[in-house]
Amino acid sequence: MNGSIAANTTATQATVAESNRSRILQHLYHEGVSSRAQIAKALNLTPAAISKITAQLIEAGAIEETGDMEGEKNRRSIGLKLDTSRFHVVGVKFARSLVQIGLFDLCGETLGLEELPPVTNDTIASTVSAIHERIARLIKADSSIVAVGMAVPGPYMHAKGRTAVVSSMQGWRDINFIDEFSHAFSVPVFIEQDARAGALSHYLFDPDSHGEDNLAYYLVGEGVGLGVIDNGRLVNGALGAAAEIGHVSIDVNGRPCDCGNFGCLERYCSTPAIRSMLIEEGEAVPGAAGMSNTCATRRLFSLASHGEERAVELVRCIARYVGYGCVNVFNTFNPHRIIIGDIVSEAGEALLDEVRATVRSRSIAEIYDSTEITLSTMPTDAIVCGAAAVAVTQFLDRPSMFFDLS
Amino acid sequence: MNGSIAANTTATQATVAESNRSRILQHLYHEGVSSRAQIAKALNLTPAAISKITAQLIEAGAIEETGDMEGEKNRRSIGLKLDTSRFHVVGVKFARSLVQIGLFDLCGETLGLEELPPVTNDTIASTVSAIHERIARLIKADSSIVAVGMAVPGPYMHAKGRTAVVSSMQGWRDINFIDEFSHAFSVPVFIEQDARAGALSHYLFDPDSHGEDNLAYYLVGEGVGLGVIDNGRLVNGALGAAAEIGHVSIDVNGRPCDCGNFGCLERYCSTPAIRSMLIEEGEAVPGAAGMSNTCATRRLFSLASHGEERAVELVRCIARYVGYGCVNVFNTFNPHRIIIGDIVSEAGEALLDEVRATVRSRSIAEIYDSTEITLSTMPTDAIVCGAAAVAVTQFLDRPSMFFDLS
Repeated sequence: MNGSIAANTTATQATVAESNRSRILQHLYHEGVSSRAQIAKALNLTPAAISKITAQLIEAGAIEETGDMEGEKNRRSIGLKLDTSRFHVVGVKFARSLVQIGLFDLCGETLGLEELPPVTNDTIASTVSAIHERIARLIKADSSIVAVGMAVPGPYMHAKGRTAVVSSMQGWRDINFIDEFSHAFSVPVFIEQDARAGALSHYLFDPDSHGEDNLAYYLVGEGVGLGVIDNGRLVNGALGAAAEIGHVSIDVNGRPCDCGNFGCLERYCSTPAIRSMLIEEGEAVPGAAGMSNTCATRRLFSLASHGEERAVELVRCIARYVGYGCVNVFNTFNPHRIIIGDIVSEAGEALLDEVRATVRSRSIAEIYDSTEITLSTMPTDAIVCGAAAVAVTQFLDRPSMFFDLS
Repeated sequence: MNGSIAANTTATQATVAESNRSRILQHLYHEGVSSRAQIAKALNLTPAAISKITAQLIEAGAIEETGDMEGEKNRRSIGLKLDTSRFHVVGVKFARSLVQIGLFDLCGETLGLEELPPVTNDTIASTVSAIHERIARLIKADSSIVAVGMAVPGPYMHAKGRTAVVSSMQGWRDINFIDEFSHAFSVPVFIEQDARAGALSHYLFDPDSHGEDNLAYYLVGEGVGLGVIDNGRLVNGALGAAAEIGHVSIDVNGRPCDCGNFGCLERYCSTPAIRSMLIEEGEAVPGAAGMSNTCATRRLFSLASHGEERAVELVRCIARYVGYGCVNVFNTFNPHRIIIGDIVSEAGEALLDEVRATVRSRSIAEIYDSTEITLSTMPTDAIVCGAAAVAVTQFLDRPSMFFDLS
């Protein structure tokens, strides 16, 4: 009993030290160059604690001293800095038939981006090999790379490392992402559900969302997913399978889904659902059957943007389904801001207008009035950026994983 | 600028002091009698800080010293105690036509419970007066009462003090709970959405849920609501209107709802929906039209429990709708434990079996296998207890509100 109490106390002390290091890194990340006195004040730590921890972080190469900066009462003091361009992370987006690999700095600045050849169920194995090879090559060429982040389709079970359902690309279910990647490289690898990565990407990198503690990233692409930040924290659920809006039914007697449920939103407005609709409809996008899900969807949007009547109608119909999902997001998570991203968001303002109209007519007025619905405007895809954001979050949260701080 | 930084620093220091007081109270609440040394270890605070804060709390009457207890290495040390029976809270449940007022100690032990006469839209004003009078009388008679907690139907907008939609009892919408009650008594009043209060009640008072950081309380009664604790924290949303499962549509082309949406779950398995169904069906519960929602529902359950075939069928049908809601809870919040409570849960095991069967057939097997679905077994109604839990949570979180700690 005494032994276990002692062990717990040591663990707690280690946790507190790590937490203080992380708070200092986060402060420098968000606030920029700061003096020891400023950090001490902001974090309510004693000057002695700050001196000790910053010395450790400088010694380890995590932060550095800058020249003099102007301090309070015009006294000069030395600035401390986390050089966000000096550390790089790799972000990998897995989106059923698409894999993107990007190189980013800690602020989400894109330094490089590569798209692998389209994936089919038969080429998943060779795609996985190619990912290994590409990442290893990137790490070898760039010693600034500190971590790899991966964004995978949900429902992704965090502890198990597997995606539970991948509609239309069952082959991905056989990949255990943890076994496959977590010890594959010389730097740590962090894996997160894709839409949750998108939410982190807007939270960390999007100037429009800076400081927004209640936001949702609503991914409408090859799948339909959601990532929610509630009061500054990701909503995860017990297994990491929360916020699976794509498998929330919009019609309990509706279309059957691979997950076992009926009427899942994903069956109505994901790109595979859109392509099926186009094939069935037959006229709006001739030859849709011979196109990929993404190509058929983009062709529809292009025709609609040129005013083709039937295409415009279909985009409106898709937007209504996206809107039904938004109403569900309102009623389940009540965020301040919903950011719609991925392929279906490429339909632009025409889609957004209909989404908003649908939500307005089906939601409580005072909640509608205090919620912003926008399209993602990240310069690089929010999910591949989001994969990087997953890595950056861990870098700031767990400094002892990246630096020798003993 | 410097002024505001200084003000922020003072605020932060005050917050840290309050947070440490709160951590000590919470430790004593959850762990029972502890020595200063044990608290210091558990919370990683210095002995000096512990001495100072506990002296303050003893002086203010929040905690007390007990006799000697056995310390480490068999040294005797003085124990500290938060006497949970010495402080009382009042809990008030507002459930459309039902108002209950209970007196509880800090552990949720029920010391008294009173039900007001049934409320109709016309008697809301007199009910509110009666509540004022009853609470004032309780406080006058019992100087141990430190706070009042209230549980009101959602979607309850926290900052505004109003419930946005109250299907079937619109009159409640005109009550601003904050204006009406927050400064009405000599002790502070805290107001929370009802199902969230239910979740807190199971989190704090239910031995079966002790230490369960991912749980959902699923209220199925006059309304349908949900309270979710995700990783130890209530999911609130920006306005406090998150987790409104009763207004998540199960059929976007379904029955219209007062909230503006169509096919809201509440329209299929709340007691008003059940009574409507019984009236329409005509045979299972003769005279349902002349009964209250609750009476008609209880009559149905009673007939079903006696094996009346048609009643059994209808209970199964209701249970399937409750199950559809559960599937939504799985896919949006992925809790470890879902506790179904309120009037509809009185149908018991017959309902629970069908709910589980519905969820099993419509959810991902590995999520189903790791999620427990149970009925609430609190000895007193989980929402009136939950109202007390709301008050207890604040008492432990914000000691300076209750004691002179200057």
